[in-house]
Amino acid sequence: MTQWNIQNIVTELQQARNEWRTRQKSLKDFGGRELPSKEEIQKIMNDLCGILFPMRLGPPDLRQQSENFYIAHTLEKTLYALQEQVKLNLTYDYKYKKHHENADVIEVLAQSMVSEFAQKLPALRRLLDTDVIAAYDGDPAARSVDEVLLCYPGIFAIIYHRIAHEFYKKELSLLARLIAEIAHSKTGIDIHPGAQIDQGFFIDHGTGVVIGETCVIGKNVRIYQAVTLGAKRFEVDESGRLQKEYARHPIVEDNVVIYAGATILGRITIGHGAVIGGNVWITQSIAPNSAVSQSSATKSLV
Amino acid sequence: MTQWNIQNIVTELQQARNEWRTRQKSLKDFGGRELPSKEEIQKIMNDLCGILFPMRLGPPDLRQQSENFYIAHTLEKTLYALQEQVKLNLTYDYKYKKHHENADVIEVLAQSMVSEFAQKLPALRRLLDTDVIAAYDGDPAARSVDEVLLCYPGIFAIIYHRIAHEFYKKELSLLARLIAEIAHSKTGIDIHPGAQIDQGFFIDHGTGVVIGETCVIGKNVRIYQAVTLGAKRFEVDESGRLQKEYARHPIVEDNVVIYAGATILGRITIGHGAVIGGNVWITQSIAPNSAVSQSSATKSLV
Amino acid sequence: MTQWNIQNIVTELQQARNEWRTRQKSLKDFGGRELPSKEEIQKIMNDLCGILFPMRLGPPDLRQQSENFYIAHTLEKTLYALQEQVKLNLTYDYKYKKHHENADVIEVLAQSMVSEFAQKLPALRRLLDTDVIAAYDGDPAARSVDEVLLCYPGIFAIIYHRIAHEFYKKELSLLARLIAEIAHSKTGIDIHPGAQIDQGFFIDHGTGVVIGETCVIGKNVRIYQAVTLGAKRFEVDESGRLQKEYARHPIVEDNVVIYAGATILGRITIGHGAVIGGNVWITQSIAPNSAVSQSSATKSLV
Amino acid sequence: MTQWNIQNIVTELQQARNEWRTRQKSLKDFGGRELPSKEEIQKIMNDLCGILFPMRLGPPDLRQQSENFYIAHTLEKTLYALQEQVKLNLTYDYKYKKHHENADVIEVLAQSMVSEFAQKLPALRRLLDTDVIAAYDGDPAARSVDEVLLCYPGIFAIIYHRIAHEFYKKELSLLARLIAEIAHSKTGIDIHPGAQIDQGFFIDHGTGVVIGETCVIGKNVRIYQAVTLGAKRFEVDESGRLQKEYARHPIVEDNVVIYAGATILGRITIGHGAVIGGNVWITQSIAPNSAVSQSSATKSLV
Amino acid sequence: MTQWNIQNIVTELQQARNEWRTRQKSLKDFGGRELPSKEEIQKIMNDLCGILFPMRLGPPDLRQQSENFYIAHTLEKTLYALQEQVKLNLTYDYKYKKHHENADVIEVLAQSMVSEFAQKLPALRRLLDTDVIAAYDGDPAARSVDEVLLCYPGIFAIIYHRIAHEFYKKELSLLARLIAEIAHSKTGIDIHPGAQIDQGFFIDHGTGVVIGETCVIGKNVRIYQAVTLGAKRFEVDESGRLQKEYARHPIVEDNVVIYAGATILGRITIGHGAVIGGNVWITQSIAPNSAVSQSSATKSLV
Amino acid sequence: MTQWNIQNIVTELQQARNEWRTRQKSLKDFGGRELPSKEEIQKIMNDLCGILFPMRLGPPDLRQQSENFYIAHTLEKTLYALQEQVKLNLTYDYKYKKHHENADVIEVLAQSMVSEFAQKLPALRRLLDTDVIAAYDGDPAARSVDEVLLCYPGIFAIIYHRIAHEFYKKELSLLARLIAEIAHSKTGIDIHPGAQIDQGFFIDHGTGVVIGETCVIGKNVRIYQAVTLGAKRFEVDESGRLQKEYARHPIVEDNVVIYAGATILGRITIGHGAVIGGNVWITQSIAPNSAVSQSSATKSLV
Repeated sequence: MTQWNIQNIVTELQQARNEWRTRQKSLKDFGGRELPSKEEIQKIMNDLCGILFPMRLGPPDLRQQSENFYIAHTLEKTLYALQEQVKLNLTYDYKYKKHHENADVIEVLAQSMVSEFAQKLPALRRLLDTDVIAAYDGDPAARSVDEVLLCYPGIFAIIYHRIAHEFYKKELSLLARLIAEIAHSKTGIDIHPGAQIDQGFFIDHGTGVVIGETCVIGKNVRIYQAVTLGAKRFEVDESGRLQKEYARHPIVEDNVVIYAGATILGRITIGHGAVIGGNVWITQSIAPNSAVSQSSATKSLV
Repeated sequence: MTQWNIQNIVTELQQARNEWRTRQKSLKDFGGRELPSKEEIQKIMNDLCGILFPMRLGPPDLRQQSENFYIAHTLEKTLYALQEQVKLNLTYDYKYKKHHENADVIEVLAQSMVSEFAQKLPALRRLLDTDVIAAYDGDPAARSVDEVLLCYPGIFAIIYHRIAHEFYKKELSLLARLIAEIAHSKTGIDIHPGAQIDQGFFIDHGTGVVIGETCVIGKNVRIYQAVTLGAKRFEVDESGRLQKEYARHPIVEDNVVIYAGATILGRITIGHGAVIGGNVWITQSIAPNSAVSQSSATKSLV
Repeated sequence: MTQWNIQNIVTELQQARNEWRTRQKSLKDFGGRELPSKEEIQKIMNDLCGILFPMRLGPPDLRQQSENFYIAHTLEKTLYALQEQVKLNLTYDYKYKKHHENADVIEVLAQSMVSEFAQKLPALRRLLDTDVIAAYDGDPAARSVDEVLLCYPGIFAIIYHRIAHEFYKKELSLLARLIAEIAHSKTGIDIHPGAQIDQGFFIDHGTGVVIGETCVIGKNVRIYQAVTLGAKRFEVDESGRLQKEYARHPIVEDNVVIYAGATILGRITIGHGAVIGGNVWITQSIAPNSAVSQSSATKSLV
Repeated sequence: MTQWNIQNIVTELQQARNEWRTRQKSLKDFGGRELPSKEEIQKIMNDLCGILFPMRLGPPDLRQQSENFYIAHTLEKTLYALQEQVKLNLTYDYKYKKHHENADVIEVLAQSMVSEFAQKLPALRRLLDTDVIAAYDGDPAARSVDEVLLCYPGIFAIIYHRIAHEFYKKELSLLARLIAEIAHSKTGIDIHPGAQIDQGFFIDHGTGVVIGETCVIGKNVRIYQAVTLGAKRFEVDESGRLQKEYARHPIVEDNVVIYAGATILGRITIGHGAVIGGNVWITQSIAPNSAVSQSSATKSLV
Repeated sequence: MTQWNIQNIVTELQQARNEWRTRQKSLKDFGGRELPSKEEIQKIMNDLCGILFPMRLGPPDLRQQSENFYIAHTLEKTLYALQEQVKLNLTYDYKYKKHHENADVIEVLAQSMVSEFAQKLPALRRLLDTDVIAAYDGDPAARSVDEVLLCYPGIFAIIYHRIAHEFYKKELSLLARLIAEIAHSKTGIDIHPGAQIDQGFFIDHGTGVVIGETCVIGKNVRIYQAVTLGAKRFEVDESGRLQKEYARHPIVEDNVVIYAGATILGRITIGHGAVIGGNVWITQSIAPNSAVSQSSATKSLV
Repeated sequence: MTQWNIQNIVTELQQARNEWRTRQKSLKDFGGRELPSKEEIQKIMNDLCGILFPMRLGPPDLRQQSENFYIAHTLEKTLYALQEQVKLNLTYDYKYKKHHENADVIEVLAQSMVSEFAQKLPALRRLLDTDVIAAYDGDPAARSVDEVLLCYPGIFAIIYHRIAHEFYKKELSLLARLIAEIAHSKTGIDIHPGAQIDQGFFIDHGTGVVIGETCVIGKNVRIYQAVTLGAKRFEVDESGRLQKEYARHPIVEDNVVIYAGATILGRITIGHGAVIGGNVWITQSIAPNSAVSQSSATKSLV
């Protein structure tokens, strides 16, 4: 008998799991783990960053003359690894929805999804270039575009988001969410992979930024730390449960600037060119080109 | 002589340490490091997460049929490792308090503390299951309970907190604090291990949340990013130093919702069922079932 | 031909890079990567932390009796590694500015910069000791100075900042920025390496704190999570681009306390001894010893 | 164009591979690598050693009280890993023989092979115990059976051989050979996995020992370094090629001792109880209980 | 129930272990593993090699100017690690001999043994320098003493042996044996840690060399691959078991050369200055300065 | 003062080093380590093996369709790494010979040496293919050419030798020797990098084989374990030191077979087609097509 009464704890933990599984009517065992792996996805994302920006985010010993060799080799390996994760995501979804596709269907589907994703990489690179420029232009402290790409958490977050969003559009929501949370953990910037963000997007400092699933953000938008683009309230269905998947986050049009700590809630529209001051609380649409700031809500004591 | 004048720097650093140690009247050397190790604690926490949720947070190659084998083996190894850290914490405490227990007393005490902790693991699992359900029910973007467990920083933070709180209750404060700070660094959610939190707790997004040491939180409470449950002011003792360890943080009763950025300070009570709006600033108790929101403190310019 | 049409993607990615490089008139290839490495800098910072606080942040198996041996050996290795990173930073700067210093000049310059930095380490240790004391005195939850050094993100951030600031003063801005962003990612505290911070500085909780490039902070200042010390607005030059590098952030004098969520913008002065309440928004100078708090901007609904 | 003219070398290497493949009429690409992996097999063997001798060759932190937990968890994981390698071996064999079994057949076959192997582990342990005893009894320098198990290359080699031989009997020759070569590389002892070796076998020192594929070795045989049990000559078939897979190595009966450097060649029999002296050269059968030694083939010069 | 019938195998393996332990009357469980660890010893040996030859076998980034810093830091760490292994060896020995010393006695004894070993390191370095010179002088293919130290397996083996022999003399036989077997596995040279070897010893090529426990080797001896200095026969005691620990291997006097493949057996003396030819078989003493070679024992067949 | 009296040991070790350095008149410090690194060379060799045989010795996840991508990327990286090691070898040689070339000369020379080596890789691959075929044809136990490439130590040794020999021809003797010793340690086969070996060479089993620096081996030669192709005696110069670098090892002509344990010494010729029996001792040339075997040098004792 062990010192810690291990056997007893093991048995009780099993009971706890059994209760949970019964309650969740969870699926019977199919053998093995059926979920995408955070560690694998982290490796894939590192490689995709290197593929997109080889001389800045690729391996330190890379030379410009061999960028293409590096990209070709890494890309192929990475796409196969990605295909495995996509298959895990699809298998999970099918089980969850209780209809059982066979392995061949999933294989073919995963391959076609990854192939479509791969073809978009050059367009993604061009889009991200507009974000890098926006960061450089938008921050007086930025001294070079390289510094932006190497150091700015906002750039890290948008690279991860634009990739996650591609998988979101294919309804690979676990995969998309895992990518988003890696970026959230590293930067404090929480962008739901569903958010639609146009070119030239820049988040400065970033910690505490939250951008909701159904946000639509136009061109050349700039936002600062602790900005929330959230839902105002949640609709409940007849059974009292929160409704999911309806448009409930703001639309932010082109050229809007939103300063730190501003909270913008609900399916409202911030018109193009508007400037939203720090810490303001907005629950109604704002006209184009307007400037909104906090009232002088502080008083001096003595 | 070395290029960098190393010897000189080493000597001056030694003087700086000596001054500090004299000033701090720190203890003379007992040989070796007497503090728990962050790296060891990180490993222990990873294993505890796997023990609590084997098929989601355990090793990727685990199969459901061998959960118990995995748990039994890992649990025993982990409890011994934990016992080492508890001993380091106890040894440090005794030294700090200048009374010197012998190694046998510490060994026995550590073993009994770890044993008690181990017996609580099944109850912890059940408690954490209520948090997972709360997260699923509370977020319209959540698509499955698995997604919640894998991706949500709020779940990560509450797993770490509930474990840290067990050690806090045993006055192993260094150990508890180290666990809390690992979660803080990964999620941006800063829950002091002293906070008492009942079942069904959910933090969404989470970045910037601060929950103070003497908070008491009821059942099924839901809070959002950047919420502070803090102290209003700090009492000073006659010598002008801050007083420590008295009840100074809010009580939040059952079924309260607190939206993003709200700041709630002092030993006040937020009554059951209250809804606290985003960004509000509260320093007085709120009646049950009330709704508090920010005044329309913004104005539109042009 | 590969399954993923790799060759085609590689070619298109090359076109995207070429367009970018043409647009950026970026420099032709000099062979190899010309930027400091985040991984290398992370290792150097770990070693510098160990050198400054050997018994708390050094290797776990270190004994007090051999602190000097450890420091001497580690210091020499670390300074050479640092010199490599400084050379990469200098080489990059020269290329960026299109004047080509030869390798010998850069070698000599890097060595002298690192040597000067090394001589400052004992003074840095003394300065950081004042921060540790400030944290212990400033937080009622702190139980020992060791807990502070091991667990507090605010201490982690200030160690990194004080080192980064030394490199900023030598105009090694990439290096300084990379150090700052490592701390930002781990703590959620974003201090620009340019900020001038005097002794006894303490940030509690810290997530979401932003301190701008030209801030000047006096002695014994204490700030809480989500405080922003930012620029009010950005000046644009005649071509409409943001102006860079002028004094645009607050001056905070000695003994000021700034509570969570306060936003202080522009080149204003917060007078010595002032207490700034949580969540306030300040864009004008505050007199010494004044207390500023939020108006009662909340109303109760039923 | 790259400095090293990479493209040209790559093209020429491809031509070399193409010539080889044409000449070998090698199979067209089926995607991925179809061979067992030496690294995987090394891991599997480490785990099997721990399963067989948990307190000596298992993880250093294992305790006797939790041997069964460790074994159960490790065994299951290891058998799945082994199944993967068996499948790779089977797939390779089928391709090599140009008949294409489908994946399901291979899966079932691999599973049944691994299952049979697993059931034999207790018997293997008992058999290896006789080898450990033989080593302890056979070496005057051995001070404990633990020393034997931890330090003796002959024990390492026989553990690996007895496992490899199980796979050889299932005609998984690649797998068996890879296991044998790992032991050969570490110990200098080269036992073909086909050799049949009865209980109580001991090889002392071992470097340079070679035991051929069709050897049959009885109970309690003891051999020393550099002993060869080989083939005398190779038969050629009508086309002049070496014939494979016929009995061509010695039979060594019970209780034989063979001293260092002896060379015994061909399908001859060394009768029970015989003692073969060092460095002798034997190509004919030796009667039971005889002693064979080298003639005094040395002369003294001055 | 698991696919592999794990539970059944686990139970049978347990029965096999129980039978063995009963038969061996092995000690009851004292908790944890009581044997030195091969991995730990490997690390310690690597560090000792660096301490003895810092610029050749130390870390690649070491500079001559900081040799002493490196040595001081590494030495202290390594001696503590060594003390742990010595304690494990002593604890094992006491248990094996069934008398139970308490932990304090073992601690003190281990510390004094390690301290004595440490004081001998400078003398070991001087002794090894004679071996390096002997290798350089003895091999026409050697181009520099650095090449000898970096590349020669004979040098690797003698460094390991001279250290192992120190522990052998302290009766730490498990530790000594483990060190010897690491060298045996890497070089194919099997020197029993008991062998007494004087200065200026050189083994060329080395594979297959075996040097027995009670060998005594003089100054400036040179031997080649596959030489055996072994026991002629083993004495059995009245119970028929092999007798252990009596002088049974050759004495080789100063300036002897032994060519490849020679076998020298028993407690005989090879007189100073003798030259032993390749492949000869010697079981009687050889006079000083004699030359022994193989008779012309080959004949040409057509 | 430390427990182990570290300072004293450090000082005495320094004295030992100083004595050695004075005696060796070794060069004053140039900063840093000036020798090639075994670890780096091991990595380079692994990559070169992958480049030569991508589907057998390359990364396990490689697919045939992307062999060229993998090779191009790996080759470029590896050649730069190799260039670093070549520079270290050249720098060492120049210092050793006391003439000081500047860094630019060494850079250019290293680059040209590596470039020439790179161009030879396709020819090396073709040559090694002949060795693979020879192994398959020469061993009745070989079941496929893949098994040969994956499992045979003789193939490992010849791949390493053929690469080492290229560097030997460029007088990079340290680099060549380090490569040879890696193979020696893994296989027990010791081929001096100077040996000239023609196509279709096969070593079976291999442990204990020694092939000397000035050996010349023809086409399709097959040798077995423990064969020595060595020098008969060493010439001494007038000062009594061994002479280096003259032809002193055997010439083995085409189609010779040499069985296990044969010793062939001196600058003699084994004529084409000769068969040398096991354990024979040969110091005179052997005519073509002759067969040499051991006399019946054993006698049976009852």
